[in-house]
Parts: sequence; C-alpha cells; structure tokens
Amino acid sequence: MTRPTITGTPDAVPTVALDELLESGDLDLLDRWMDQADVVEIAEELSRLSREQRAVPFRLLRKDRALEVFELLDPSLQQELLEGLRETNVRQLFEEMDPDDRARLTEEMPAKVARRLLAGLSPNERRLTSTLLGYPEDSAGRLMSPEVASLRAGMTARQALDRLRQIGRSAETIYALPVTDDHRRLVGALGLRDLVLADPDTAVGELMDTEVFSARVDADQEEAARLIREADLLALPIVDTEDRLVGIVTFDDAMEVLEEEETEDRARAGGAEPLGRPYMATSVLRIARSRVVWLLFLIVAATLTVNVLQVFAGTLDRVVKLALFIPLIIGTGGNTGAQAATTVTRALAVGEVRFDDLWVVILREARVGLLLGGVLGLLALGPASLYVGSGEIGLVVSLTLITVCTLAAFVGALLPLVARRIGVDPAVMSAPFITTLVDASGLVLYFLIARAVLGV
Amino acid sequence: MTRPTITGTPDAVPTVALDELLESGDLDLLDRWMDQADVVEIAEELSRLSREQRAVPFRLLRKDRALEVFELLDPSLQQELLEGLRETNVRQLFEEMDPDDRARLTEEMPAKVARRLLAGLSPNERRLTSTLLGYPEDSAGRLMSPEVASLRAGMTARQALDRLRQIGRSAETIYALPVTDDHRRLVGALGLRDLVLADPDTAVGELMDTEVFSARVDADQEEAARLIREADLLALPIVDTEDRLVGIVTFDDAMEVLEEEETEDRARAGGAEPLGRPYMATSVLRIARSRVVWLLFLIVAATLTVNVLQVFAGTLDRVVKLALFIPLIIGTGGNTGAQAATTVTRALAVGEVRFDDLWVVILREARVGLLLGGVLGLLALGPASLYVGSGEIGLVVSLTLITVCTLAAFVGALLPLVARRIGVDPAVMSAPFITTLVDASGLVLYFLIARAVLGV
Repeated sequence: MTRPTITGTPDAVPTVALDELLESGDLDLLDRWMDQADVVEIAEELSRLSREQRAVPFRLLRKDRALEVFELLDPSLQQELLEGLRETNVRQLFEEMDPDDRARLTEEMPAKVARRLLAGLSPNERRLTSTLLGYPEDSAGRLMSPEVASLRAGMTARQALDRLRQIGRSAETIYALPVTDDHRRLVGALGLRDLVLADPDTAVGELMDTEVFSARVDADQEEAARLIREADLLALPIVDTEDRLVGIVTFDDAMEVLEEEETEDRARAGGAEPLGRPYMATSVLRIARSRVVWLLFLIVAATLTVNVLQVFAGTLDRVVKLALFIPLIIGTGGNTGAQAATTVTRALAVGEVRFDDLWVVILREARVGLLLGGVLGLLALGPASLYVGSGEIGLVVSLTLITVCTLAAFVGALLPLVARRIGVDPAVMSAPFITTLVDASGLVLYFLIARAVLGV
Repeated sequence: MTRPTITGTPDAVPTVALDELLESGDLDLLDRWMDQADVVEIAEELSRLSREQRAVPFRLLRKDRALEVFELLDPSLQQELLEGLRETNVRQLFEEMDPDDRARLTEEMPAKVARRLLAGLSPNERRLTSTLLGYPEDSAGRLMSPEVASLRAGMTARQALDRLRQIGRSAETIYALPVTDDHRRLVGALGLRDLVLADPDTAVGELMDTEVFSARVDADQEEAARLIREADLLALPIVDTEDRLVGIVTFDDAMEVLEEEETEDRARAGGAEPLGRPYMATSVLRIARSRVVWLLFLIVAATLTVNVLQVFAGTLDRVVKLALFIPLIIGTGGNTGAQAATTVTRALAVGEVRFDDLWVVILREARVGLLLGGVLGLLALGPASLYVGSGEIGLVVSLTLITVCTLAAFVGALLPLVARRIGVDPAVMSAPFITTLVDASGLVLYFLIARAVLGV
C-alpha cells in the first residue's frame, strides 16, 4: 500500500469498506475499524449502508465518538438511526446536540416524536431549541445558534479574554465576537485573532470593526449563507428587528446550507426532484418517485412535437428524406439551449447576473447562438447534401441549424431569467425543460424552411 | 424602500448599480458610492463591468480598500486590472497580497510580466511566492500559505499566547494552530478557542488533539479542500514527505477551490467548457468558443441518428406515421438518461458512491428506469393509439418507451462511473453527452419493435 497523501490518523487503518466488513461478519475487525477510523470516514461509510445495516456499527461506537459521528450525518439518516436506538440513548444524543442541529433534526421527525423528545430536554436546552423553531422555515433564525458569545465596547482586551474563559465553553463560536451596547444592540464585531494579538489594555471599542455584516432573523437562510461565503466570514451575527443581537450563524452551517442548495439545483438541472438523502441509502422506489413527475411533465410537453409533425405530415409524406435529420436538428437545438440555460442559471445563482440584465443577456446569448449555428450550418452543408444526394435538402438542414441555434440560445437564456423574476427556482428551467420546448419550435422551423426552399 | 434584511453598513447606500452610475457620469455620486458600499459589493459590481469600465472606479478606491477589493476579484480580472494601472500601483498591490493569492495570480499572467513583478518583491515575499510556485499545479502546496503560526508541545498556554502576539500578525491564520516537535514534525493541533479557554499554565501538549488531519504538499488540491469541508476544519496543516510542517490551507481558500470545481462541473454538465471568469465580463466570442467544440462533437455523434434512420428508411417509407413519435421517444430516453447521469455524477462527486459500487448502482438505475418506462408506457398506450388511429402503433410506442427508459437509465449510470475509473471528469459524461448517445440506440429499438409488431 502506498502512503496516503491525506491522512486523519497516523496509524494504518484497515482499508476495507464498512459494508464488506459487515458482510464478512468479522466482528473483531469491525470493532477495530470503528475504533481507529476517524469520525468523518465513519459517517461517510454509514451513509452508504441500508437502514438495517446501519444500527449495529453505530452502537459499537464509544459514546463521545457516537455524538460526533451523529452530528455529521444527514438529518434524514439521523432520524432513522434514532428510531433504532433505545429511548435512553435517544434522549442522551438529543440532549447533547447543538440547538441549531437539533432544530433541523426536529423538522424531519413525526410531530409526536419531536414533542416527546423536546419535552425530555433540560429546561435551558428546550428553551434554546423552541426559540429556533419559532422562526419561519428557511430563515436565518432557524439556522443560527442562540448561544452567542458577545463583548461590550467598554471592556479591555484582557477583560474580554477573561470573560471568554468563563462563558466561552457553551458558545457556538468565539472566533467571531459581536460587540453590543447596553441595549444588546449590535455596534461592531471583533475577531478572536485581533483580540488575542492586541495589547491587553486596549478597549474592545477601539479594536472592533464598526462596519459589520449582519442578517435579520427573518432573512433568507441561503442569502445569509452566501454572504458568509462571499465575504469570507467565520460567522455572521443575527439581529432582531430592533438590531438587538439574538444569535450567530457559523461558516460550517452556512456551507451545509449552500451544499444542500447546490444539490437541489443540480438535481433539477438534470430533470429530477432532489433526493434529500444520500444516494446509496435511498430506495429504488423513492428515486423513481423523485423523477416521475418531471418525466410525465416533459412527455406531455413532448406531445407538442407529435402535433407539429402531424401538421406537416403532408410534407413528410412527399419528402421522407426530411425525417432523417429530425433527431439531429432537435438534438443540436436542445444542446445549444441547454448550454445557454446552464450558463445563465449559474450566473444568476452566484449573483453575476440580475434580472435587470435581461436584455443584455438574451441579446448576447442570441449572438452566441447565431455564431454557433453559423459554424455548424456551414460545416453541415456539404456532408448533408452529399449524404441524401440533394443540395436543396442540405441547404434546408443548414439554414435550420442556424435559426434553431439562435432561437435555442435566446430561449435558454430567457427562461431562467423569467423564472427568477416570477419567483421560481431558475434551475427548474434548465436543460431537460428547455430541450423539450426547443424541440417543437425546431421542428416548425425545419418544415417551414423546407417548404420555402423545396416548394412542397 | 424597505429596510434590507441583510446589511453590511448601517447607513443607507444609494441602491444604484455601478454600471448605471458610470453611464450617468455623476462622479460625485460615484465617489460617494465607492466610499460607502462594502468591499464585497464593490467587487461584485466590478465583476459585471467591461474591461474598459472597470479601471476608473477601481482607481477611485482608497488604498487600503483597493487591496481588499482586489483580493476578492477573480484572478482573470485581477490580471486585467493590473494591466490598466501604473507600474508603482501594480507593484504595491502585488507586494501586499497574500503569498498564495499572489501565486494564483501569477499563473494567469504572461510569464514575462510575472517574472518582472516577482523580481520587484521584497526578498521575503519573493521567497514565499517562489516556494509555492515550485509545487505542481493543483497540488495542496500551491494552495497553502507558508506563513503558518505553529506551537511547540512543551509551551504553556500563556507562553503560546505570548508567542502568538509576536508572530501572529504575519500568519495566515491563528485559529488553527499546528503543534510540532523539535524537528518541525507535525505531532498535533490546537484550536485558538481551546488555547484561549484553557488555564494559562496548562501545557500545549496536554491541550492539543493528537488525531490531527493533514495533507501532503503533493496531495490533490481538491481532495484537501473537500476534507476541510467535510470535517468542518478551519484550516488544514500541510506537511512534506517527512511529515514536517510546511504550510497551512485555510477554509476560505478551500471553499474557493470547491466553488471553482463546482462551476466547472456545472458547465460540463450543460455541455460547455467552463468560462473561468465572471459571465458579464466575458465576450460573446469567448462564450461561443467555450461551447463550439462540445456542439461539434455532439453533432458528429448525432449523425449516428441520421444513419440509423437511413437503415430503416424502407420501414419509414411504408409507415410514415412512425415518424410522428421519433422526437417524443428520443426526448424521453434522453431525459431519463440525463436524470440517472446527474444523480450518479453528483453522488460520485460528494463521495456517496464509488467505482466499487458499479454493479449495485447500474442495476438500481436499470430498475428505476424500468419502473419509469412502465409508468410512461402504460399512460401513453391509449392516447397514442387513438391519435394515429392504430392500436398497433400505440403498442409499438408503449413498448419502446419501456425499453428505452430502462436502457437510458442504465447507460446514464454506467458512463459517469466508467469515466471516473478511467480518470475522466464524470461531469463530462452527463446530460448532453448521454442524450445524444441514447438517441441513436432509442431509434434502433423503436424500429426493431415496429418491425416485430407491425411485421413491415
């Protein structure tokens, strides 16, 4: 075995997958593996197992490691694991989670189970979790931790460090330290780095940055997360409507939100609903369900193409050779449209493009489409003419490629922008949707051009 | 105007886009905006401008803010900005950047310019940058910062904090503190949080975590970044082949790598090469260039469909009605394949699926495809038969949908897995590629089933 270039533990861990270990039935080796592998690896392996397989290795974990692994799992898997554990273990795990992670898990549970578990929490933990659950879904309030360590502007750096030593253990983070006035209103922020590096007698008020980023409890989770990533923040203070500090969102929770959003966008861009759980832990039926509505919708849209061809059945009857190029033309149109849609959807998602840019963007894309269609049309002219032995049909194919590519790029750019405007996720408008739409109009163009050129 | 829920500065900033401000020619307002907007916003607005527009507002920035904004820009834009600035300003910006950002910018520059700028650096900064440039492209060594603040196990917490006060200012981060032995070998790590919260007389050796994640200088950048995200690390120590600490990668640099990779995957999933720069700052010609090779390749693949139809031209001549359903059938096959490919590509990218799972995955997807095809085929039977007034053609369409969906899901799952195995980016194998491949085989199935059922 070559030495791994990325390593979590200095000792060699048996490089066997957990599912193989389970099948082998070698409990000694399993126990050793669970003891030596790092928590990230264990969480990853557990995510690949079926629901039944998952319970045994999890119960083999030492108590402290079990919590760490549990926190790394997807909420859907956390819930399934809980169902397989004894009540006392469940209560313990639940009590020891961070309030924000607990709130997210609670959303996944049947309401009855959630209520019972919440009732079992210590009063303080219950209060923290209930506060979070009081904010609207997908708001920054749900994502934040209310356990925020804050400073006062009047403290010296030394006093601030002493205070942190007292209150810091229970805080979600002490790397980013919001500074408040006497009414708990946010007036600045200070990184732990600057506090540690400062002369101990300097006042926090002098050290702090007064141009501080913050988000309101009711702000959109994803926007808050994006701000954290774009401004490279370690954490973002969350304030209420009166600017009073109520919590903090850390970068790792923000990354999770963005990754989830990314996964959803990707799934929709591929024409399916997001699974919302790890692939290997999802049943065939659930996967099929995530896709069937999309397929049904797309096939209904595709009946448009049947109708279009029916209208031109006369033309087709007389020049059957036109049928040979139908898949090629609609395929190319679909691909050009998908390219434009993917680019614009991405640019919208990362904020490079806004709805105000509508005209600029669709005109650019139409020009890109014209350019691409021109190149393809020119290249196709010769081979198409030779293949069917008719320069006229070659010309029809060539002209159709030029117009279809221009139209497809235009539509591909337009739809995500319109979707964003009317409040629909632009990812919904991408590749498969646009391909299906462009198919029908491509066929119409093809037969209109054929009629004009061939006079049939 | 409603109060924004996410805010960077307490004062109201004119909510005008920078490009409109530039067009209006109101230099006073422009100056005020540049002064009040936060650096993230300024960097975002600059990314939307054309190359010519960008130079003026950038020069209006105060010196300290100019550097902050500059560091937030994409390396391709950084380079263009430098070209428009006076030599002294360029030298100053270049000198003040972090060594790792400087190394990345250097890659974008013409070699001659890069050499001249590097020669102008102070000896220390030049040494740091040259070290980074000595590591292979896309290695963790290129990404890391050599300015790492490390501790010794024998120090007390107080001594460690004192040391940080001396050396911490120039370090890339002091939030994650690698601990080394007398030979600079990595033996543990300590978060600044634990150091600050600890009793000042405790030894670092007692506080530190000895199960520490690390990566070798020659490890893949993306793998290192993924580890940082998955294990929620603030930073990852980088070691040489003898385990000696040589640098550190922070989470914000890791996020940049992952975002770039994500952008590339998305672009390829949409059938285009990544632009590598913000959309609005990219010319039409460059966008067209990023797509044309893909389109050409796909259109050449699509000629397969022309050939298939040519082979079945006799059948088509006798039953022209079969042509009506060609776009619908290949469209549905393509969509089913795209769904499978997107799911598997994503699962591979986040590590939920590995090549070893090949059989499990493709059999699952084939079952998903059969299920989906069954539903669609059953639903299509009636309408298709009625529409063309022939139950036999309805049956052909129905049977073809079942087989095409199964095949498409199978191929859609297989290709990304094979791509990963042979070292090709699985994103290359997604939607447009698979759609085009499935088109031809869908047609063959359609006509074979038609021949069998209709006996033509």
